[in-house]
Amino acid sequence: MDSLQGKTVTIVGLGLMGGSLALALRDCSVRLVAVEPDAATRERALAQGLVDNATADLASGVSGADLVVLAAPVGAILDLLPAVAAACPDSCTILDLGSTKGAVVAAMDRLPAGTQAVGGHPMCGKEMAGLAAAEADLYVGQTFFLCRSARTSPEAEATVEALVAAAGAQPWWIEPEEHDRLVALVSHMPYFAAAALMAEAAAVATAGEQVWRAAAGGFRDTSRLAGSEPRMIGDIARTNRAAILEALRSYQSRVGEVIALLESDDDGALSAWLAARQREHAEYRQAKGS
Amino acid sequence: MDSLQGKTVTIVGLGLMGGSLALALRDCSVRLVAVEPDAATRERALAQGLVDNATADLASGVSGADLVVLAAPVGAILDLLPAVAAACPDSCTILDLGSTKGAVVAAMDRLPAGTQAVGGHPMCGKEMAGLAAAEADLYVGQTFFLCRSARTSPEAEATVEALVAAAGAQPWWIEPEEHDRLVALVSHMPYFAAAALMAEAAAVATAGEQVWRAAAGGFRDTSRLAGSEPRMIGDIARTNRAAILEALRSYQSRVGEVIALLESDDDGALSAWLAARQREHAEYRQAKGS
Repeated sequence: MDSLQGKTVTIVGLGLMGGSLALALRDCSVRLVAVEPDAATRERALAQGLVDNATADLASGVSGADLVVLAAPVGAILDLLPAVAAACPDSCTILDLGSTKGAVVAAMDRLPAGTQAVGGHPMCGKEMAGLAAAEADLYVGQTFFLCRSARTSPEAEATVEALVAAAGAQPWWIEPEEHDRLVALVSHMPYFAAAALMAEAAAVATAGEQVWRAAAGGFRDTSRLAGSEPRMIGDIARTNRAAILEALRSYQSRVGEVIALLESDDDGALSAWLAARQREHAEYRQAKGS
Repeated sequence: MDSLQGKTVTIVGLGLMGGSLALALRDCSVRLVAVEPDAATRERALAQGLVDNATADLASGVSGADLVVLAAPVGAILDLLPAVAAACPDSCTILDLGSTKGAVVAAMDRLPAGTQAVGGHPMCGKEMAGLAAAEADLYVGQTFFLCRSARTSPEAEATVEALVAAAGAQPWWIEPEEHDRLVALVSHMPYFAAAALMAEAAAVATAGEQVWRAAAGGFRDTSRLAGSEPRMIGDIARTNRAAILEALRSYQSRVGEVIALLESDDDGALSAWLAARQREHAEYRQAKGS
């Protein structure tokens, strides 16, 4: 399937990710169906003309789908996969948007032969959740990881690539293990670093200091990820524990190096360390084209 | 001085902070003089009509000033203070914009009697430096810390409050020690947390992993402060070492708690920890009115 035109796409979960995907697909001549347990969210999506049909019933929602997108936390995706595989047509492709891929792709491998399933992870989002936070251009220009499972045919690959293109994202086919190791470093560990920062600042604020009044743009950005959905992060931690722990232990050592550096009172070493970080930041921004 | 109208304001250093202040004051009917060692920056500022006069000579630049603003890293401020006090008129007020206040205010205390000097620290900035990065609204709505020294008269207080108002910022009179403790927590420690994150990610990138390609918005924000000017951060570290070390040691313990939590495999404790961080983030954002 080189294009989604005329196809039926069922999005399971109309939160930030599913809702933003629906917004991005609205002008692509696809029939959009939502499976969403919350009645108010279903009504809102129908009233806005965001989807053509919305139901709380998974089996009926996926029964006519060419592509089913599971836009839910990883734990929910693992629960949903067998039921979706049982209820969707044989020709249908299942794609998930979960934040970790090892456990999901392993679950896809165990689906009945003939099922088409691809692991996906768009590298976009924000700390706000829910359909109200959805944006049509959330995926535009962002990396969209894709992982083949034992249940991925060339046709299923083409279908999910068509979806990624329609959303404006950049596909990156990757092995689940490499994905999970990379996102542990660039996403999960930074979440825990931000959350530890928030815990420390909040403890001092609770002790009576005017921390929030003093906090400015630097604190805002460095702590932003602490606002992430606990359920999403909990599922990430449960399904990528080893890689996150490895990254966090290395990070803790780096913080220890900083402490030793400041304790040493070695001005030359400090200056070199600070300059190296600025240089790395510039290299990183240059690699991102900004 | 309730208003700066008709007064001469000399800004020493036309970088991001000094340049943005000049932009903010351009429509306030003040005479603006810049002391800036870089000839190209002086020419650019004059060509843009940003300042009425620009010189590399400190003594002549401050000789007719009603208010001198030292917009430089803390080390340079400490070097500049005696010379500025010697060259400026008796009625002139000296304000610095340095990131730490203990050492600067102590240096102000040692200036000759009759000098008027106030410690200042606007809580704004970005990881880009230089006049080219300056913005007229950089100070708007931001906290502007002010510290009385032994050389601060009521008139000097009124003068710097007029400047803060003209820049659109919010004044916060504070003791230097409380300032340095608070910014160690909300600004300096977050810098080192971001820089340690950058060090870790860059080390893995150098080892051959496609780290930058995988990095998205979460990494971008959490690591942003790593791009800060080494000279500025070095001066901060040298003049606020004890408070930064205390904050970093507490932070390292928090990271250790996270590691122990993930190692424990205790789902209930993890969920509670994640929910507490999201709640604290919401409380912080509410305190900031967003």
